[in-house]
Amino acid sequence: MRKLHHLALSPFCRKVRLFLAEKKLEVELIDEPVWEKKLDFIRFSPSGKVPLLKEGSSVYTESTPICEYLDESYPIPKLIPADKKFRFESRRINCWFDDKFYNEVTKNLLNERVYKKIFKIGHPDSSAIKEGLRRIKFHFDYLEWLLEKRNWLAGEKCH
Amino acid sequence: MRKLHHLALSPFCRKVRLFLAEKKLEVELIDEPVWEKKLDFIRFSPSGKVPLLKEGSSVYTESTPICEYLDESYPIPKLIPADKKFRFESRRINCWFDDKFYNEVTKNLLNERVYKKIFKIGHPDSSAIKEGLRRIKFHFDYLEWLLEKRNWLAGEKCH
Repeated sequence: MRKLHHLALSPFCRKVRLFLAEKKLEVELIDEPVWEKKLDFIRFSPSGKVPLLKEGSSVYTESTPICEYLDESYPIPKLIPADKKFRFESRRINCWFDDKFYNEVTKNLLNERVYKKIFKIGHPDSSAIKEGLRRIKFHFDYLEWLLEKRNWLAGEKCH
Repeated sequence: MRKLHHLALSPFCRKVRLFLAEKKLEVELIDEPVWEKKLDFIRFSPSGKVPLLKEGSSVYTESTPICEYLDESYPIPKLIPADKKFRFESRRINCWFDDKFYNEVTKNLLNERVYKKIFKIGHPDSSAIKEGLRRIKFHFDYLEWLLEKRNWLAGEKCH
């Protein structure tokens, strides 16, 4: 049985769970408290990160390579587009969320509201939370603009 | 003419320059002081990051999607392996260098020794530099181990 070592709130794990679900691939989810650095986990994921996917004797780590692997191995439905322009764009937007959105929004909210509590490392910093919430707006505006552009590009292709 | 907006010392830009060079693709290099946030740059790279590649009227950002695009568009020589196992592994190692090696080694050395001087934001923190140098060793050990494993895997495939 396929196994995914994950954290429920990690956006990187959520991405892989979405890929598995869209492709209707069965998986056993295993909560992995990465901060405990269990030897049995670290030897498969030397970077100490989740998600970690196990399929038979094969082990896959790093969310983006895992998704590329899943899309190549289980192509129905294809989630990374075939068209070269959209293919690039979907990978670029993936990077946007993994890097810019994560650092400007997710990290501020998740670290302050959740992880500080779990690790007992002080109280939430309200200015960081405010900053994270303030920035969401700009990201949503950008996303909306991208979707309009995408519809425009798709329309242009049809004509 | 193809143009690459870059920073000479950024490992993300170096990766793209290597891809272009291996594929013998001509390119005009343009130094991009990202910290100046020039409007003419930001409108093409809204995340404000280099590398930024321009080919005709098309614009590409984010080093990994750029490399995937180049490997698909100019497949001689192929730099991302065709074999599924190696294909995944090359993408995973790419992530390792973009994330773990960058955060544990490059950032400590580059920020302290170079960027602090450029931005005039204080003196280099010698403990960060020491930490960066100390960690290189572990990364090199891991890389050596990976190369041995790779040779072993390649040998296994031949038999």
